[in-house]
Amino acid sequence: MKQAKVSNNVIRRMPRYLRKLDELKAAGVDRISSFELGRQMGLTSSQIRQDFSCFGEFGQQGYGYNVTGLRGEIAGILGMNRDFSVILVGVGNIGRAMIENFCFEQYGFHLLAAFDVRPEVVGSDISGVRVHDISELKNLLETHRVDIAVLSVPKLIANKVARELVEHGVKAIWNFTNIELDVSESEAIVENIHFSDSLLALGYYLGEKLDAEAAAAAKQARQ
Amino acid sequence: MKQAKVSNNVIRRMPRYLRKLDELKAAGVDRISSFELGRQMGLTSSQIRQDFSCFGEFGQQGYGYNVTGLRGEIAGILGMNRDFSVILVGVGNIGRAMIENFCFEQYGFHLLAAFDVRPEVVGSDISGVRVHDISELKNLLETHRVDIAVLSVPKLIANKVARELVEHGVKAIWNFTNIELDVSESEAIVENIHFSDSLLALGYYLGEKLDAEAAAAAKQARQ
Repeated sequence: MKQAKVSNNVIRRMPRYLRKLDELKAAGVDRISSFELGRQMGLTSSQIRQDFSCFGEFGQQGYGYNVTGLRGEIAGILGMNRDFSVILVGVGNIGRAMIENFCFEQYGFHLLAAFDVRPEVVGSDISGVRVHDISELKNLLETHRVDIAVLSVPKLIANKVARELVEHGVKAIWNFTNIELDVSESEAIVENIHFSDSLLALGYYLGEKLDAEAAAAAKQARQ
Repeated sequence: MKQAKVSNNVIRRMPRYLRKLDELKAAGVDRISSFELGRQMGLTSSQIRQDFSCFGEFGQQGYGYNVTGLRGEIAGILGMNRDFSVILVGVGNIGRAMIENFCFEQYGFHLLAAFDVRPEVVGSDISGVRVHDISELKNLLETHRVDIAVLSVPKLIANKVARELVEHGVKAIWNFTNIELDVSESEAIVENIHFSDSLLALGYYLGEKLDAEAAAAAKQARQ
């Protein structure tokens, strides 16, 4: 039932639904109405019904959603059952943090191997993931199917490494380098972690909060 | 001219405009039409005009936007001129990566100090930022204005530390702990870095790409 083209906004809400449904499951909730789900997520119930209607019909009028069933549908939409294999290139602070702390398996992704150039990390195991010398990257890409590469190398070599990945058939790059990669959409999907976007949104909302508090204080002082 | 409540979607696009305008400035572009800006960002020109109209009038009909001027307006909207001060709590891999690689100053934020418990990092300087023992946190919060705390401690103590920050007047938390903090909106603004949301969106788009390629290959095989 998947339609040709679902808007990016809808896609971006799917992981949020997943997190909320996991939370509901953990709290022992079996069934939830679109109204209540919306209330908890700051969305309207019609927005929620519209989002899911892009992929089929998951609820039953008047009965709400089965939490486990809806969670399964969303996991399927997000490709969590596709056994995507992942490598990580660049075991600096961010790369190491992702290996040690990010639970790829929980989302159905398999972290196969990591790569770096520094002798002090090459050959080591981090949380069960072997770090190889970058010179072995080509060989691994030729002998294994790799769907996604986590790119956490220094900025200066980001595009060079991205080019090598794409030329060896990697179809998706999760980009932590903070630069825009010179990779076309037809070559690979690039998903950027933009820390600055997140901090600047925080700055906006903090400014709004401080302004509101200052206005309230000024009003009180006048009374 | 700021209106009472601008939608979250509009706010989230502001940092993207900022990045694009910085890119245009670096490329020597002085002026750009909403049509061309939209084309480069995958938005419609009416969407762009609507976004900016939430904050005032930045362009002139028929003349487009002055790149430097618009960049300044957006920086102002995002609070980049408010001199927000920042501390970082938890100098593990992620914390260290943010200190070493994220350019807070570039966005107008000042990273004052970092905190940890481990003797091997306490007392050290990382890229000019001093790491203090966590026991000094309370004292610093009482003697300095701290607007934002970067929270990059282990999950298990995340809520405990968040509570201490809020109780000492920190109004915003940039949360890297991957758990939902038990902090109410009236206490502090919490902005989460959700790595999983980003990876799952990547998984969706990769699945879509692979399906399209498989369909094209099947079609060709039948011909």
